[in-house]
Amino acid sequence: MQITKLETLTADLELDGGIVIRKFCVLYDCEIGSGTKIGSHCTFGRCSIGARCKIEDGTTICDGHVVEDEVFIGANVTFCNDRYPRTCNDDGSMLGDDDWLLEPVTAKRRSSIGSNAVIGPGVTIGEGAVVACGAVVMHDVPDGATVIGNPARLMRSLV
Amino acid sequence: MQITKLETLTADLELDGGIVIRKFCVLYDCEIGSGTKIGSHCTFGRCSIGARCKIEDGTTICDGHVVEDEVFIGANVTFCNDRYPRTCNDDGSMLGDDDWLLEPVTAKRRSSIGSNAVIGPGVTIGEGAVVACGAVVMHDVPDGATVIGNPARLMRSLV
Amino acid sequence: MQITKLETLTADLELDGGIVIRKFCVLYDCEIGSGTKIGSHCTFGRCSIGARCKIEDGTTICDGHVVEDEVFIGANVTFCNDRYPRTCNDDGSMLGDDDWLLEPVTAKRRSSIGSNAVIGPGVTIGEGAVVACGAVVMHDVPDGATVIGNPARLMRSLV
Repeated sequence: MQITKLETLTADLELDGGIVIRKFCVLYDCEIGSGTKIGSHCTFGRCSIGARCKIEDGTTICDGHVVEDEVFIGANVTFCNDRYPRTCNDDGSMLGDDDWLLEPVTAKRRSSIGSNAVIGPGVTIGEGAVVACGAVVMHDVPDGATVIGNPARLMRSLV
Repeated sequence: MQITKLETLTADLELDGGIVIRKFCVLYDCEIGSGTKIGSHCTFGRCSIGARCKIEDGTTICDGHVVEDEVFIGANVTFCNDRYPRTCNDDGSMLGDDDWLLEPVTAKRRSSIGSNAVIGPGVTIGEGAVVACGAVVMHDVPDGATVIGNPARLMRSLV
Repeated sequence: MQITKLETLTADLELDGGIVIRKFCVLYDCEIGSGTKIGSHCTFGRCSIGARCKIEDGTTICDGHVVEDEVFIGANVTFCNDRYPRTCNDDGSMLGDDDWLLEPVTAKRRSSIGSNAVIGPGVTIGEGAVVACGAVVMHDVPDGATVIGNPARLMRSLV
Protein backbone atom coordinates (compact mmCIF):
# COMPACT_ATOMS: atom_id res chain seq x y z
CA MET A 1 0.00 0.00 0.00
CA GLN A 2 1.04 3.60 -0.59
CA ILE A 3 1.76 5.53 2.62
CA THR A 4 1.87 9.31 2.31
CA LYS A 5 2.67 10.18 5.90
CA LEU A 6 2.55 8.04 9.00
CA GLU A 7 4.10 7.89 12.43
CA THR A 8 3.53 5.16 14.99
CA LEU A 9 3.44 5.99 18.67
CA THR A 10 2.98 3.62 21.58
CA ALA A 11 0.98 0.94 19.77
CA ASP A 12 2.05 -1.39 16.98
CA LEU A 13 0.08 -0.58 13.85
CA GLU A 14 -1.53 -3.31 11.75
CA LEU A 15 -2.49 -2.23 8.25
CA ASP A 16 -4.33 -3.96 5.42
CA GLY A 17 -2.56 -6.94 3.90
CA GLY A 18 -0.92 -7.97 7.16
CA ILE A 19 1.57 -5.09 7.25
CA VAL A 20 2.82 -4.49 10.81
CA ILE A 21 4.69 -1.32 11.81
CA ARG A 22 6.06 -1.19 15.34
CA LYS A 23 6.47 1.76 17.67
CA PHE A 24 8.12 5.14 17.02
CA CYS A 25 8.48 4.76 13.25
CA VAL A 26 8.41 7.61 10.72
CA LEU A 27 7.29 6.87 7.16
CA TYR A 28 6.54 9.26 4.34
CA ASP A 29 5.74 8.74 0.69
CA CYS A 30 6.77 5.11 0.68
CA GLU A 31 5.22 1.97 -0.77
CA ILE A 32 5.04 -1.10 1.51
CA GLY A 33 4.09 -4.58 0.24
CA SER A 34 1.70 -6.94 1.99
CA GLY A 35 2.91 -9.05 4.89
CA THR A 36 5.92 -6.86 5.59
CA LYS A 37 6.92 -6.35 9.26
CA ILE A 38 8.79 -3.21 10.32
CA GLY A 39 10.52 -2.86 13.72
CA SER A 40 10.54 0.15 16.00
CA HIS A 41 12.42 3.44 15.41
CA CYS A 42 12.66 3.00 11.62
CA THR A 43 12.67 5.97 9.21
CA PHE A 44 11.60 5.47 5.60
CA GLY A 45 11.61 8.20 2.94
CA ARG A 46 10.32 8.03 -0.64
CA CYS A 47 11.29 4.40 -1.10
CA SER A 48 9.68 1.16 -2.20
CA ILE A 49 9.60 -1.86 0.14
CA GLY A 50 8.34 -5.19 -1.22
CA ALA A 51 6.03 -7.86 0.19
CA ARG A 52 6.85 -10.27 3.03
CA CYS A 53 9.98 -8.36 4.08
CA LYS A 54 11.22 -8.15 7.66
CA ILE A 55 13.02 -4.97 8.71
CA GLU A 56 14.33 -4.60 12.24
CA ASP A 57 14.65 -1.72 14.71
CA GLY A 58 16.37 1.58 13.99
CA THR A 59 16.91 1.08 10.26
CA THR A 60 16.94 4.10 7.91
CA ILE A 61 15.91 3.79 4.25
CA CYS A 62 15.59 7.22 2.68
CA ASP A 63 14.65 8.52 -0.76
CA GLY A 64 14.91 6.42 -3.90
CA HIS A 65 15.85 3.03 -2.47
CA VAL A 66 14.17 -0.16 -3.67
CA VAL A 67 13.73 -3.24 -1.48
CA GLU A 68 12.21 -6.17 -3.38
CA ASP A 69 10.04 -8.98 -1.94
CA GLU A 70 11.08 -11.27 0.93
CA VAL A 71 14.16 -9.27 1.92
CA PHE A 72 15.50 -9.39 5.48
CA ILE A 73 17.12 -6.23 6.90
CA GLY A 74 18.56 -6.24 10.45
CA ALA A 75 18.67 -3.48 13.06
CA ASN A 76 20.47 -0.12 12.75
CA VAL A 77 21.12 -0.59 9.01
CA THR A 78 21.51 2.49 6.78
CA PHE A 79 21.05 2.75 3.01
CA CYS A 80 22.99 5.74 1.55
CA ASN A 81 21.92 7.63 -1.57
CA ASP A 82 24.52 10.41 -1.88
CA ARG A 83 28.15 9.68 -2.75
CA TYR A 84 29.47 13.10 -1.69
CA PRO A 85 27.15 14.31 1.09
CA ARG A 86 27.57 17.94 2.13
CA THR A 87 25.40 20.81 3.23
CA CYS A 88 26.72 23.69 1.10
CA ASN A 89 28.03 24.38 -2.38
CA ASP A 90 31.60 25.67 -2.73
CA ASP A 91 30.28 29.24 -2.84
CA GLY A 92 28.60 28.78 0.56
CA SER A 93 25.01 28.63 -0.70
CA MET A 94 22.87 25.85 0.76
CA LEU A 95 22.72 22.73 -1.38
CA GLY A 96 19.59 22.59 -3.55
CA ASP A 97 17.79 19.62 -5.08
CA ASP A 98 19.78 19.99 -8.33
CA ASP A 99 23.14 20.14 -6.59
CA TRP A 100 23.51 16.47 -5.85
CA LEU A 101 22.99 13.14 -7.61
CA LEU A 102 20.53 10.61 -6.14
CA GLU A 103 22.08 7.12 -6.36
CA PRO A 104 19.66 4.70 -4.75
CA VAL A 105 20.33 1.17 -3.46
CA THR A 106 18.47 -1.89 -4.76
CA ALA A 107 18.13 -4.93 -2.47
CA LYS A 108 16.89 -7.74 -4.69
CA ARG A 109 14.46 -10.54 -3.82
CA ARG A 110 15.32 -12.73 -0.81
CA SER A 111 18.55 -10.93 -0.03
CA SER A 112 19.53 -10.69 3.66
CA ILE A 113 21.31 -7.66 5.15
CA GLY A 114 22.76 -8.05 8.66
CA SER A 115 22.45 -5.61 11.54
CA ASN A 116 24.52 -2.38 11.56
CA ALA A 117 25.50 -2.88 7.88
CA VAL A 118 25.77 0.18 5.62
CA ILE A 119 24.95 -0.01 1.92
CA GLY A 120 26.68 2.64 -0.18
CA PRO A 121 25.06 4.78 -2.90
CA GLY A 122 24.12 3.05 -6.14
CA VAL A 123 24.86 -0.47 -4.86
CA THR A 124 22.75 -3.46 -5.92
CA ILE A 125 22.49 -6.38 -3.48
CA GLY A 126 21.82 -9.43 -5.67
CA GLU A 127 18.96 -11.93 -5.38
CA GLY A 128 19.44 -14.20 -2.38
CA ALA A 129 22.73 -12.47 -1.49
CA VAL A 130 23.84 -12.16 2.13
CA VAL A 131 25.47 -9.08 3.67
CA ALA A 132 27.10 -9.96 7.00
CA CYS A 133 26.31 -7.85 10.05
CA GLY A 134 28.48 -4.74 10.25
CA ALA A 135 29.58 -4.94 6.59
CA VAL A 136 30.19 -1.70 4.68
CA VAL A 137 29.15 -2.44 1.10
CA MET A 138 30.49 -0.10 -1.59
CA HIS A 139 30.20 -2.38 -4.66
CA ASP A 140 27.46 -4.53 -6.17
CA VAL A 141 26.98 -7.96 -4.61
CA PRO A 142 26.29 -10.78 -7.12
CA ASP A 143 23.19 -12.97 -6.81
CA GLY A 144 23.66 -15.61 -4.11
CA ALA A 145 26.99 -14.22 -2.89
CA THR A 146 27.97 -13.46 0.72
CA VAL A 147 29.98 -10.34 1.59
CA ILE A 148 31.63 -9.50 4.88
CA GLY A 149 33.88 -6.78 6.36
CA ASN A 150 34.76 -3.11 5.90
CA PRO A 151 35.06 -2.62 3.00
CA ALA A 152 32.90 -5.65 2.25
CA ARG A 153 34.57 -8.40 0.23
CA LEU A 154 33.21 -11.56 -1.32
CA MET A 155 33.22 -14.52 1.08
CA ARG A 156 31.75 -17.24 -1.09
CA SER A 157 29.22 -17.63 -3.86
CA LEU A 158 26.31 -20.03 -3.64
CA VAL A 159 25.25 -19.72 -7.29
CA MET B 1 12.12 -6.21 37.88
CA GLN B 2 10.10 -8.04 35.24
CA ILE B 3 8.68 -5.77 32.52
CA THR B 4 5.94 -7.25 30.38
CA LYS B 5 5.33 -4.29 28.09
CA LEU B 6 6.47 -0.72 28.41
CA GLU B 7 7.12 2.26 26.18
CA THR B 8 8.49 5.58 27.35
CA LEU B 9 7.33 8.80 25.74
CA THR B 10 8.45 12.33 26.48
CA ALA B 11 9.46 11.83 30.11
CA ASP B 12 12.28 9.76 31.57
CA LEU B 13 10.82 6.93 33.61
CA GLU B 14 12.14 6.09 37.07
CA LEU B 15 11.14 2.66 38.33
CA ASP B 16 11.65 0.86 41.63
CA GLY B 17 15.22 0.03 42.51
CA GLY B 18 16.65 3.09 40.80
CA ILE B 19 16.03 1.87 37.24
CA VAL B 20 15.92 4.79 34.78
CA ILE B 21 14.58 4.41 31.25
CA ARG B 22 14.88 7.43 28.99
CA LYS B 23 12.60 8.62 26.22
CA PHE B 24 11.16 6.68 23.27
CA CYS B 25 12.19 3.20 24.44
CA VAL B 26 10.31 -0.01 23.68
CA LEU B 27 10.63 -2.92 26.12
CA TYR B 28 8.67 -6.15 26.23
CA ASP B 29 9.02 -9.27 28.35
CA CYS B 30 12.46 -8.35 29.66
CA GLU B 31 14.02 -8.46 33.12
CA ILE B 32 15.95 -5.36 34.25
CA GLY B 33 18.16 -5.29 37.37
CA SER B 34 18.21 -2.51 39.96
CA GLY B 35 20.20 0.63 39.30
CA THR B 36 20.37 0.08 35.53
CA LYS B 37 20.14 3.18 33.30
CA ILE B 38 18.82 2.87 29.74
CA GLY B 39 19.22 5.65 27.14
CA SER B 40 16.64 6.85 24.63
CA HIS B 41 15.42 4.94 21.54
CA CYS B 42 16.40 1.49 22.84
CA THR B 43 14.47 -1.66 21.91
CA PHE B 44 14.63 -4.69 24.20
CA GLY B 45 12.92 -8.03 23.52
CA ARG B 46 12.67 -11.09 25.76
CA CYS B 47 16.10 -10.58 27.27
CA SER B 48 17.68 -10.33 30.70
CA ILE B 49 19.61 -7.21 31.73
CA GLY B 50 21.52 -7.22 35.03
CA ALA B 51 21.89 -4.67 37.82
CA ARG B 52 23.88 -1.42 37.66
CA CYS B 53 24.29 -1.57 33.86
CA LYS B 54 24.44 1.48 31.62
CA ILE B 55 23.06 1.15 28.11
CA GLU B 56 23.15 4.13 25.75
CA ASP B 57 20.84 5.49 23.06
CA GLY B 58 19.53 3.49 20.11
CA THR B 59 20.74 0.07 21.21
CA THR B 60 18.78 -3.06 20.23
CA ILE B 61 18.82 -6.21 22.39
CA CYS B 62 16.23 -8.67 21.18
CA ASP B 63 15.07 -12.12 22.28
CA GLY B 64 17.23 -14.46 24.33
CA HIS B 65 20.22 -12.25 25.09
CA VAL B 66 21.72 -12.10 28.58
CA VAL B 67 23.51 -9.03 29.96
CA GLU B 68 25.01 -9.63 33.40
CA ASP B 69 25.58 -7.03 36.16
CA GLU B 70 27.62 -3.82 35.74
CA VAL B 71 27.92 -4.06 31.96
CA PHE B 72 28.41 -0.93 29.84
CA ILE B 73 26.87 -0.87 26.35
CA GLY B 74 27.32 2.20 24.11
CA ALA B 75 24.97 3.77 21.58
CA ASN B 76 23.59 2.13 18.41
CA VAL B 77 24.84 -1.33 19.42
CA THR B 78 23.05 -4.43 18.10
CA PHE B 79 23.05 -7.95 19.54
CA CYS B 80 22.20 -10.58 16.86
CA ASN B 81 20.48 -13.90 17.60
CA ASP B 82 20.06 -15.49 14.16
CA ARG B 83 23.05 -16.70 12.13
CA TYR B 84 21.14 -17.01 8.86
CA PRO B 85 18.39 -14.39 8.99
CA ARG B 86 15.77 -14.59 6.25
CA THR B 87 12.06 -14.08 5.86
CA CYS B 88 11.02 -17.19 3.93
CA ASN B 89 11.78 -20.88 3.68
CA ASP B 90 13.11 -22.22 0.37
CA ASP B 91 9.57 -23.19 -0.66
CA GLY B 92 8.41 -19.58 -0.25
CA SER B 93 6.40 -20.09 2.95
CA MET B 94 6.95 -17.48 5.67
CA LEU B 95 9.51 -18.49 8.28
CA GLY B 96 7.91 -19.95 11.42
CA ASP B 97 9.21 -20.14 14.97
CA ASP B 98 10.61 -23.63 14.35
CA ASP B 99 12.42 -22.65 11.16
CA TRP B 100 15.35 -20.88 12.75
CA LEU B 101 17.75 -21.43 15.65
CA LEU B 102 17.93 -18.84 18.46
CA GLU B 103 21.60 -18.25 19.34
CA PRO B 104 21.68 -15.58 22.04
CA VAL B 105 24.61 -13.39 23.12
CA THR B 106 25.93 -13.33 26.70
CA ALA B 107 27.73 -10.20 27.94
CA LYS B 108 29.36 -11.20 31.22
CA ARG B 109 29.82 -9.09 34.35
CA ARG B 110 31.64 -5.75 33.98
CA SER B 111 32.22 -6.15 30.26
CA SER B 112 32.19 -2.96 28.16
CA ILE B 113 30.85 -2.80 24.60
CA GLY B 114 31.62 0.33 22.59
CA SER B 115 29.17 2.34 20.46
CA ASN B 116 28.04 0.99 17.06
CA ALA B 117 29.53 -2.45 17.83
CA VAL B 118 27.67 -5.56 16.62
CA ILE B 119 27.75 -8.81 18.56
CA GLY B 120 27.11 -11.90 16.43
CA PRO B 121 24.81 -14.82 17.31
CA GLY B 122 25.95 -17.16 20.09
CA VAL B 123 28.92 -15.00 21.13
CA THR B 124 29.99 -14.70 24.78
CA ILE B 125 31.73 -11.48 25.84
CA GLY B 126 33.90 -12.45 28.82
CA GLU B 127 33.95 -10.91 32.29
CA GLY B 128 35.60 -7.49 32.25
CA ALA B 129 36.26 -7.78 28.50
CA VAL B 130 36.27 -4.69 26.28
CA VAL B 131 34.76 -4.48 22.78
CA ALA B 132 36.04 -1.39 20.96
CA CYS B 133 33.53 0.95 19.34
CA GLY B 134 32.53 -0.21 15.86
CA ALA B 135 33.85 -3.75 16.36
CA VAL B 136 32.03 -6.65 14.69
CA VAL B 137 32.39 -9.58 17.07
CA MET B 138 31.82 -13.06 15.61
CA HIS B 139 33.76 -15.16 18.13
CA ASP B 140 33.84 -15.44 21.92
CA VAL B 141 35.94 -12.85 23.74
CA PRO B 142 37.97 -14.21 26.71
CA ASP B 143 37.62 -12.69 30.18
CA GLY B 144 39.57 -9.43 30.45
CA ALA B 145 40.48 -9.31 26.74
CA THR B 146 40.07 -6.34 24.39
CA VAL B 147 38.85 -6.84 20.81
CA ILE B 148 38.84 -4.32 17.99
CA GLY B 149 38.02 -4.17 14.27
CA ASN B 150 35.85 -5.89 11.67
CA PRO B 151 36.04 -8.80 12.12
CA ALA B 152 37.06 -8.19 15.71
CA ARG B 153 40.48 -9.52 16.69
CA LEU B 154 42.23 -9.75 20.05
CA MET B 155 44.18 -6.62 20.94
CA ARG B 156 45.58 -7.58 24.33
CA SER B 157 44.59 -9.64 27.34
CA LEU B 158 44.57 -8.24 30.85
CA VAL B 159 44.10 -11.59 32.60
CA MET C 1 19.63 28.98 19.89
CA GLN C 2 20.07 27.42 23.31
CA ILE C 3 17.79 24.45 23.96
CA THR C 4 17.41 23.38 27.59
CA LYS C 5 15.08 20.45 27.11
CA LEU C 6 13.07 19.43 24.10
CA GLU C 7 11.51 16.32 22.63
CA THR C 8 9.72 16.14 19.32
CA LEU C 9 6.77 13.84 18.89
CA THR C 10 4.71 13.22 15.76
CA ALA C 11 5.24 16.60 14.10
CA ASP C 12 8.41 18.12 12.70
CA LEU C 13 9.37 21.17 14.74
CA GLU C 14 10.39 24.43 13.09
CA LEU C 15 12.21 26.84 15.39
CA ASP C 16 13.48 30.40 14.95
CA GLY C 17 16.27 30.82 12.44
CA GLY C 18 15.08 28.03 10.19
CA ILE C 19 16.06 25.20 12.53
CA VAL C 20 14.10 22.03 11.74
CA ILE C 21 13.98 19.06 14.13
CA ARG C 22 12.19 15.97 12.92
CA LYS C 23 10.18 13.42 14.85
CA PHE C 24 11.12 11.50 18.02
CA CYS C 25 14.26 13.49 18.86
CA VAL C 26 15.60 14.12 22.37
CA LEU C 27 17.69 17.25 22.99
CA TYR C 28 18.88 18.69 26.26
CA ASP C 29 21.20 21.56 27.10
CA CYS C 30 22.52 21.90 23.56
CA GLU C 31 23.16 24.88 21.33
CA ILE C 32 21.89 24.65 17.72
CA GLY C 33 22.85 27.16 14.99
CA SER C 34 20.42 28.70 12.51
CA GLY C 35 19.40 26.77 9.42
CA THR C 36 20.41 23.39 10.86
CA LYS C 37 18.20 20.39 9.99
CA ILE C 38 18.05 17.38 12.33
CA GLY C 39 16.54 14.03 11.30
CA SER C 40 14.30 11.78 13.36
CA HIS C 41 15.37 9.69 16.40
CA CYS C 42 18.45 11.80 17.22
CA THR C 43 19.73 12.24 20.78
CA PHE C 44 21.84 15.29 21.65
CA GLY C 45 23.35 15.98 25.07
CA ARG C 46 25.24 19.05 26.27
CA CYS C 47 26.85 19.71 22.89
CA SER C 48 27.23 22.55 20.45
CA ILE C 49 25.96 22.22 16.86
CA GLY C 50 26.76 24.97 14.35
CA ALA C 51 24.68 26.71 11.69
CA ARG C 52 23.51 25.21 8.39
CA CYS C 53 24.38 21.66 9.42
CA LYS C 54 22.46 18.58 8.29
CA ILE C 55 22.26 15.64 10.68
CA GLU C 56 20.38 12.51 9.67
CA ASP C 57 18.22 9.97 11.51
CA GLY C 58 19.28 8.06 14.62
CA THR C 59 22.51 9.93 15.32
CA THR C 60 23.76 10.33 18.91
CA ILE C 61 25.90 13.32 19.97
CA CYS C 62 26.27 13.41 23.73
CA ASP C 63 28.01 15.70 26.21
CA GLY C 64 30.89 17.95 25.25
CA HIS C 65 31.03 17.45 21.48
CA VAL C 66 31.43 20.39 19.11
CA VAL C 67 30.06 20.43 15.55
CA GLU C 68 31.02 23.57 13.64
CA ASP C 69 29.05 25.24 10.81
CA GLU C 70 27.96 23.50 7.60
CA VAL C 71 28.84 19.99 8.74
CA PHE C 72 27.05 16.96 7.28
CA ILE C 73 26.46 13.95 9.56
CA GLY C 74 24.71 10.84 8.19
CA ALA C 75 22.34 8.40 9.89
CA ASN C 76 23.13 6.18 12.91
CA VAL C 77 26.43 7.97 13.63
CA THR C 78 27.81 8.00 17.19
CA PHE C 79 30.30 10.44 18.73
CA CYS C 80 32.10 8.89 21.76
CA ASN C 81 33.43 10.90 24.71
CA ASP C 82 34.83 8.25 27.06
CA ARG C 83 37.92 6.20 26.19
CA TYR C 84 37.36 3.55 28.87
CA PRO C 85 33.60 3.36 29.38
CA ARG C 86 32.44 1.32 32.38
CA THR C 87 29.74 1.44 34.99
CA CYS C 88 31.69 0.80 38.20
CA ASN C 89 35.02 1.58 39.81
CA ASP C 90 37.32 -1.33 40.67
CA ASP C 91 35.94 -1.37 44.24
CA GLY C 92 32.40 -1.90 42.89
CA SER C 93 31.09 1.60 43.65
CA MET C 94 29.09 3.23 40.84
CA LEU C 95 31.15 5.54 38.63
CA GLY C 96 30.82 9.20 39.63
CA ASP C 97 31.33 12.36 37.59
CA ASP C 98 34.95 12.61 38.75
CA ASP C 99 35.77 9.01 37.89
CA TRP C 100 36.11 9.43 34.14
CA LEU C 101 37.67 11.87 31.70
CA LEU C 102 35.45 13.67 29.17
CA GLU C 103 37.22 13.67 25.78
CA PRO C 104 34.88 15.35 23.30
CA VAL C 105 34.95 15.18 19.49
CA THR C 106 35.28 18.28 17.29
CA ALA C 107 33.91 18.16 13.73
CA LYS C 108 35.27 21.24 12.00
CA ARG C 109 33.56 23.44 9.41
CA ARG C 110 32.23 21.74 6.27
CA SER C 111 33.39 18.29 7.27
CA SER C 112 31.22 15.34 6.17
CA ILE C 113 30.70 12.20 8.26
CA GLY C 114 29.06 9.22 6.55
CA SER C 115 26.27 7.05 7.92
CA ASN C 116 27.00 4.47 10.67
CA ALA C 117 30.47 5.99 11.28
CA VAL C 118 31.79 6.15 14.86
CA ILE C 119 34.07 8.95 16.01
CA GLY C 120 36.30 8.03 18.96
CA PRO C 121 36.92 10.16 22.07
CA GLY C 122 39.06 13.27 21.64
CA VAL C 123 39.19 13.06 17.84
CA THR C 124 39.16 16.19 15.66
CA ILE C 125 37.68 15.87 12.15
CA GLY C 126 39.44 18.59 10.09
CA GLU C 127 37.84 21.35 8.04
CA GLY C 128 36.31 19.95 4.87
CA ALA C 129 37.43 16.43 5.77
CA VAL C 130 35.37 13.40 4.72
CA VAL C 131 34.70 10.33 6.88
CA ALA C 132 33.40 7.45 4.75
CA CYS C 133 30.24 5.66 5.82
CA GLY C 134 30.92 2.93 8.38
CA ALA C 135 34.39 4.26 9.25
CA VAL C 136 35.65 3.90 12.84
CA VAL C 137 37.81 6.98 13.46
CA MET C 138 40.26 6.77 16.37
CA HIS C 139 42.78 9.45 15.29
CA ASP C 140 42.55 13.06 14.14
CA VAL C 141 41.69 13.60 10.47
CA PRO C 142 43.62 16.43 8.75
CA ASP C 143 41.80 19.27 7.00
CA GLY C 144 40.54 18.16 3.58
CA ALA C 145 41.50 14.51 4.05
CA THR C 146 39.28 11.47 3.45
CA VAL C 147 39.37 8.49 5.80
CA ILE C 148 37.80 5.07 5.29
CA GLY C 149 37.65 1.69 7.05
CA ASN C 150 37.90 0.17 10.53
CA PRO C 151 40.16 1.44 11.91
CA ALA C 152 39.90 4.44 9.60
CA ARG C 153 42.96 5.18 7.48
CA LEU C 154 43.82 8.08 5.21
CA MET C 155 42.56 7.62 1.66
CA ARG C 156 43.73 10.82 0.03
CA SER C 157 44.28 14.43 0.94
CA LEU C 158 42.72 17.26 -1.04
CA VAL C 159 44.68 20.06 0.63
